[in-house]
Amino acid sequence: MLSLIDHVGIAVEEIDAALPYYTNTLKLELVHRETVAEQGVEAALLDVGDGHIELIAPLGPETGVAKFLAKRGPGLHHVAYRVENIEATLGTLAADGVRLIDESPRIGIRNSKVAFLHPASSGGVLTEIVQPVH
Amino acid sequence: MLSLIDHVGIAVEEIDAALPYYTNTLKLELVHRETVAEQGVEAALLDVGDGHIELIAPLGPETGVAKFLAKRGPGLHHVAYRVENIEATLGTLAADGVRLIDESPRIGIRNSKVAFLHPASSGGVLTEIVQPVH
Repeated sequence: MLSLIDHVGIAVEEIDAALPYYTNTLKLELVHRETVAEQGVEAALLDVGDGHIELIAPLGPETGVAKFLAKRGPGLHHVAYRVENIEATLGTLAADGVRLIDESPRIGIRNSKVAFLHPASSGGVLTEIVQPVH
Repeated sequence: MLSLIDHVGIAVEEIDAALPYYTNTLKLELVHRETVAEQGVEAALLDVGDGHIELIAPLGPETGVAKFLAKRGPGLHHVAYRVENIEATLGTLAADGVRLIDESPRIGIRNSKVAFLHPASSGGVLTEIVQPVH
């Protein structure tokens, strides 16, 4: 059902300030930047093998990521698994009683289809599933 | 330098209580369990593609993971990148001024060579590098 750790989401105060550690020190390639207004974030993707690191910075103080940063500081924010068929996966999860933040997929970064599971159903871990555009 | 997101480490109170979500709901395969006394944890590995999820539960109240749980609750604990040559990678990171928790590798789960970077040098993210035994 889950084919890959698609990405790890890391909350940062500001993308530009966070990038040099990833590009210069870890020598990861920055492959994409995008403002995802619906999620209230600016995001940057850095490839690691077939997966990536997703840096996310808040667009404003009322966003979820701003609240996360205020409470916990910068750091690991969510884990995302890649799936082949996000609608089928959501159906399976819902049938298993998983509480979903998104009952149907929405469009995420790079036009992927994404959906979040509620941390209450996933051991405290904010969990995303992603079906990339191929 | 980093070939893969080798694993995501997730802190849990108790492995047995945490496993059903991963095995039954996410349908990941449990491939390994081990007590890593040096790190004060019981650990379980669940494969996701070529990487895995590493559940870690504290062996006692004075362990780092117990303190993490007391402060932040269960959730994302660290990210680990796979490398081909851990000594060379540590040398490169040290030369770049990265603060290391482990200046030389130690033996981790499944006899892998592992080393941790200090979160102060890695944007608040506890970061591990891993050279698996092939």
